[in-house]
Amino acid sequence: MSRVLIVLLALVAGLEQPDLKTAVSSWVAAHRQAVIDELLELLAIPNVASDTPNIRRNADHLRALLARRGFAAEVLETTGNPLVYGNLPVPGATRTVLFYLHYDGQPVDPSKWRQPDPFTPVMRGDGADARIYARSASDDKAPIVALLASLDALRSANLAPTSNVKVILDGEEEAGSVSLVPAIGRYRDQLRADLMVILDGPGHSSGRPTVAFGARGIATVDLTVYGPKSGVHSGNYGNWIPNPAMRLAQLLASMKSEDGRVTVDGYYAAVPPLAAEDRAMLDAVPDDSVQVLRTFGVAEPEKAFPKLQYAFQYPTLNVRGLSSSFVGAGARTIIPDRATAALDLRLVKETAPDDLVAKLRAHIEKQGYHLVDQDPDDAARAKYPKLARLAMIGPPTRAFRTPADDPQARAVVAALTKTFGQPPVQLRTLGGTVPIAPFIEALGFPALTVPTVNFDNNQHEENENVRVATFLDSISIMAAMLRM
Amino acid sequence: MSRVLIVLLALVAGLEQPDLKTAVSSWVAAHRQAVIDELLELLAIPNVASDTPNIRRNADHLRALLARRGFAAEVLETTGNPLVYGNLPVPGATRTVLFYLHYDGQPVDPSKWRQPDPFTPVMRGDGADARIYARSASDDKAPIVALLASLDALRSANLAPTSNVKVILDGEEEAGSVSLVPAIGRYRDQLRADLMVILDGPGHSSGRPTVAFGARGIATVDLTVYGPKSGVHSGNYGNWIPNPAMRLAQLLASMKSEDGRVTVDGYYAAVPPLAAEDRAMLDAVPDDSVQVLRTFGVAEPEKAFPKLQYAFQYPTLNVRGLSSSFVGAGARTIIPDRATAALDLRLVKETAPDDLVAKLRAHIEKQGYHLVDQDPDDAARAKYPKLARLAMIGPPTRAFRTPADDPQARAVVAALTKTFGQPPVQLRTLGGTVPIAPFIEALGFPALTVPTVNFDNNQHEENENVRVATFLDSISIMAAMLRM
Repeated sequence: MSRVLIVLLALVAGLEQPDLKTAVSSWVAAHRQAVIDELLELLAIPNVASDTPNIRRNADHLRALLARRGFAAEVLETTGNPLVYGNLPVPGATRTVLFYLHYDGQPVDPSKWRQPDPFTPVMRGDGADARIYARSASDDKAPIVALLASLDALRSANLAPTSNVKVILDGEEEAGSVSLVPAIGRYRDQLRADLMVILDGPGHSSGRPTVAFGARGIATVDLTVYGPKSGVHSGNYGNWIPNPAMRLAQLLASMKSEDGRVTVDGYYAAVPPLAAEDRAMLDAVPDDSVQVLRTFGVAEPEKAFPKLQYAFQYPTLNVRGLSSSFVGAGARTIIPDRATAALDLRLVKETAPDDLVAKLRAHIEKQGYHLVDQDPDDAARAKYPKLARLAMIGPPTRAFRTPADDPQARAVVAALTKTFGQPPVQLRTLGGTVPIAPFIEALGFPALTVPTVNFDNNQHEENENVRVATFLDSISIMAAMLRM
Repeated sequence: MSRVLIVLLALVAGLEQPDLKTAVSSWVAAHRQAVIDELLELLAIPNVASDTPNIRRNADHLRALLARRGFAAEVLETTGNPLVYGNLPVPGATRTVLFYLHYDGQPVDPSKWRQPDPFTPVMRGDGADARIYARSASDDKAPIVALLASLDALRSANLAPTSNVKVILDGEEEAGSVSLVPAIGRYRDQLRADLMVILDGPGHSSGRPTVAFGARGIATVDLTVYGPKSGVHSGNYGNWIPNPAMRLAQLLASMKSEDGRVTVDGYYAAVPPLAAEDRAMLDAVPDDSVQVLRTFGVAEPEKAFPKLQYAFQYPTLNVRGLSSSFVGAGARTIIPDRATAALDLRLVKETAPDDLVAKLRAHIEKQGYHLVDQDPDDAARAKYPKLARLAMIGPPTRAFRTPADDPQARAVVAALTKTFGQPPVQLRTLGGTVPIAPFIEALGFPALTVPTVNFDNNQHEENENVRVATFLDSISIMAAMLRM
């Protein structure tokens, strides 16, 4: 097909855009198995960020998938895992959209999965709830395949994208995307665009197309409270040698009220009151709390921020793990030598990670603790009745948020509104983190997240899955953005 | 040697008793290596209660050791691990003393030990602090070998015991001695005595001979707080889906004040105020708190019961383990599905285990929890905002305490006073548990504990050890009791 013809077809297609959804849906219906097979094939390549050989296999495979759609596709080397890059210029287009996705996945504990191997995808469930179970099924390989399929669908309908399309696939998102910002210096030309669309995360549980203007950041810390040098017999010294597990419990309890509000001094201080238009945006999001709570088997949410959208506007203090000596078969009757809580602090745009961690340190010291940087030595043990350590685990990731009135962002909202006949669900801030805020800052153009997978995908957990119907529907969302 | 001669020698020896310690010490000095070798050989037989074949090897080996000292020795079968029994009647003796010890040991985690195998004993340290490292070095094989050596020492000095001597060696003390009481029906004649002396536990840190009139009991429970059905992403739901690890921390914190006092309603109610003579007994125990704290690397004890002996007169609520999701390499950014604390409650004579556990249940319910007996089903999850489970782990063991003025107990104190030139350290209650209270109750005669090993023996932990000098000195303690 000549370039002139593409341009002509694009102009015609602009007039036909009300039928875009129908056209894409028909194509998907006719190519259902091929699209699913492309996803299954991709999921079968293990993709934990530390698994370098398999990461390389993913990158090569994805480069070929991009090339097959006419992208000028390359594997871009970085100081870490490679990026996969594709460029599809469209004659006459005046806007360039950079789609960001990631091809690595969270570590796996196969013993907890219902299938032998998280990298041998399994289809379970019938009809509307059929799902594909595999690591990265939702996070984030389904969106990659859906984006590629949307290009096939457009081409089949003789519709070209209305923007220049660039794609960047990150190979270490689940490991903090540490090589992403350093790669900008080397690949600035390739990455130049007017808007970045991040295709990651769960869409709204209503199933409606979803646009998010920001995402929370994250800082992870380990908090250890020290007890006796080694575990001591709980009979011979119980009621007398202080117990670090109880003290850790007391320390954690001092950080949150019964209703779930963080009680660390100044923890929310940097977050300004929500403006009327912010509240309007949050209130317009359909309330799916009953369904979410039923799905997770929880009777009531925390009371501090009873509406989920409001909860996302504030930083969290989450206990993601606890450990002290043994529970279960290996348990022994001792006062343990230490107790550790693994915490994650979700950040909003206004809360700097260092500031929150400093406030947490001040809070711990206020509870009478002396903080050490290493396991305490005899001198520290003799001097301080209460010893603890707060250690940052890996670099933090900042939050980002594009203003709700940004013109490029409004264009995405308008395209989705036109294609689907109603506005998308618009989220001021996603609850989760894409480790991309410094990348967005460094690139200097606005960014939006368009999350498309089912909300109950067990992301980051065992039995991660993608609902097949949601995955196939998302192809129309991709097409709408390509035609905005 | 004829029986008549033994009796004559015994009479003469009675006159010579002031020299008993010297006589035994001389014998020990001359037979040091043989005594140590006998202990090393015994420690080399693995003795975790669940390891049935090795338990049997221990029993057979010990029966032979008793027989070698002239005991009528038998392996007594029970519903569980066998008892080893020895009977050494002494012509003319009017008192029968039953020595109780155990030959099983706590489970081991070899990866945490400084030696490859906890059942291949290792000698480390020089001179006065030389120690033997192995599972059961102190708990409770050293006392077995010391008792046997004391009989050799007496025989070498032509001294017979002044009481009929019976020995019973328990093969499942660390597993709760569940077969001990049922065995009484079958072996009541063998077990009949005027006094039971329990040779177990650490002696006072002063190194002085020690007598304990009782021991605390124990009940172990697991407390689980439930969160979402499976772990959920801490970003997508943080600040909203309640976190079971934080709730467990808050629940545990509600059970103890900052100073270490249990705040569960009525937890100490059954314990009467200490009488003047009780206080006098507690105050007469040398205060070794500075040394103990330095050894364990702890600056200050808990404030609720600042003196260790007073701490033992009250029940405890100890967190022996904590677990929720992962800490360290496997940590993931989730709100975990559950969090569990393994607790042990040390009991005193006045506190019944069921009563304390009932009070704990009432406390948990008062914090707004609905208690379940199994993992909650969907109906319970939909109905109750706060779900927890409190499960007894194994049967509890009651405390015991022989009155301080019991004549048989006073005879032991008098014998030790005479041999060592000063009264032994007299403990109203040992902090630890010997799972023997129902056995004592069922036998119907008084019981005393004479703990002889070093206080810093890492009992129940990795790198359990016995200080060689303490072990050898304890042979004189055994001899004094045989000659009381």
